[in-house]
Amino acid sequence: MNESPQATAVHAIFAKANFVQALGITVTALGEGRCETRMPVLPMHQQQDGFVHAGALTTLADHTAGGAALMCMAEGEAVLSIELKMNMLSPALGPALRCVGTVLRAGRTVVVAEAEVFAQQDGAEKRVGKATVTLIRQRRA
Amino acid sequence: MNESPQATAVHAIFAKANFVQALGITVTALGEGRCETRMPVLPMHQQQDGFVHAGALTTLADHTAGGAALMCMAEGEAVLSIELKMNMLSPALGPALRCVGTVLRAGRTVVVAEAEVFAQQDGAEKRVGKATVTLIRQRRA
Amino acid sequence: MNESPQATAVHAIFAKANFVQALGITVTALGEGRCETRMPVLPMHQQQDGFVHAGALTTLADHTAGGAALMCMAEGEAVLSIELKMNMLSPALGPALRCVGTVLRAGRTVVVAEAEVFAQQDGAEKRVGKATVTLIRQRRA
Amino acid sequence: MNESPQATAVHAIFAKANFVQALGITVTALGEGRCETRMPVLPMHQQQDGFVHAGALTTLADHTAGGAALMCMAEGEAVLSIELKMNMLSPALGPALRCVGTVLRAGRTVVVAEAEVFAQQDGAEKRVGKATVTLIRQRRA
Repeated sequence: MNESPQATAVHAIFAKANFVQALGITVTALGEGRCETRMPVLPMHQQQDGFVHAGALTTLADHTAGGAALMCMAEGEAVLSIELKMNMLSPALGPALRCVGTVLRAGRTVVVAEAEVFAQQDGAEKRVGKATVTLIRQRRA
Repeated sequence: MNESPQATAVHAIFAKANFVQALGITVTALGEGRCETRMPVLPMHQQQDGFVHAGALTTLADHTAGGAALMCMAEGEAVLSIELKMNMLSPALGPALRCVGTVLRAGRTVVVAEAEVFAQQDGAEKRVGKATVTLIRQRRA
Repeated sequence: MNESPQATAVHAIFAKANFVQALGITVTALGEGRCETRMPVLPMHQQQDGFVHAGALTTLADHTAGGAALMCMAEGEAVLSIELKMNMLSPALGPALRCVGTVLRAGRTVVVAEAEVFAQQDGAEKRVGKATVTLIRQRRA
Repeated sequence: MNESPQATAVHAIFAKANFVQALGITVTALGEGRCETRMPVLPMHQQQDGFVHAGALTTLADHTAGGAALMCMAEGEAVLSIELKMNMLSPALGPALRCVGTVLRAGRTVVVAEAEVFAQQDGAEKRVGKATVTLIRQRRA
């Protein structure tokens, strides 16, 4: 089955982003205005108390929101985050985090996407973070 | 000269946070409600276009804001980021970023700090990001 | 049918808040961690181009998020917004706006709620704004 | 002395915005990328505990940030807030609030401005709120 040009573009922004690769983030599912990702929780992600650092959570959320936004773009368009807001809802622990990005609004210039981060805790998923990301559309370099 | 208990606490949260160590962030100056840090720009920090990833900028800003907040705490108190907002003002490039965190308000329960991130460009400093971070006071574990 | 103590508390914070009354905001439905409100769009709400002012949208969203948070509190507890973030997704026009507030996380000290604002356009609802609000629990005065 | 076209444009967006007029907000000073305003604290601005409502504070901050942004624009350009973030640092009381808006970055498409709100307390000024506002440039209608 052929991948859509949007899905190819999303896979590319994950593969080419060194920081995303360094954190071990991978794409697990894509849909219209939707991107789902996974990040294993490793010692490198921890802050001083052993929880996942807010910066690692934000990286996961920002890039996943960007992936969701890119799933709404035309061929040849890119997106760039201009601001983000992240709430750390609960301390995040491993073994892995799941992140779901969805587009709230894709305007002519501005795209707004959300991303929720879930940890596995006592055999159930727990929402540990939620981000809102504002992006602008750009011609791809 | 002896370091203050607050300065010792700040150095500890930078030394013990694996994610901050992995990114190469170091404390360069401390003052009352003030923390200054440095992060070299390495290939690992890049997003798909070669700029510093918003998540790396946010990590730098969040931890530096936390350091500034900790400089206002009493002995035995810790701080925890509950939410952050970051504006990416310009694409950030190397060779290094400087971050300055300052406390806006230290209340009984809630502390609000800001962090500005500067890059070196054409021999001058350029502000590339600005964050606002909300933290809560906690007894240290 | 008797109203729950939480619902009584929510009705009180809408009735006693002069600014909310001045804008014409009313509660239309309540549930567990959920509050729904309505604001008629009047000339007084407009900014310079005739759209609803971002500040009026934010007032609606903030108070509705606070109502949702209060629906999760114990008797004698109050909530206070410490920060909010609002995205204006599309220009908002009348005749009325509907707002839905929901609680994302009710922790021991911190409560995080969201609020979405909808306008009526061409016979359908359109999401024109989305807010995230961070609140702290307090003993009621 | 003649007013600059930018200053004329700022005065116009305050005069034409009904919501800003209803709240009693006036421009008190203008400069390059800078706007200062005043809002008397009236009973209508209050929330349920007698403090200025977060929505009124946000209105003041948003419009003042917009004024500062407009002071950086070329003739014929307008600005529109696409998102804002406000921290309520302390409960705000009267008799009046002073707000200072400054531009952090004026890019080709996106403008980022800040606004600080000060109350008078015990004969001194106290910072009660701080906002960051993201705006986009537009051709004036």
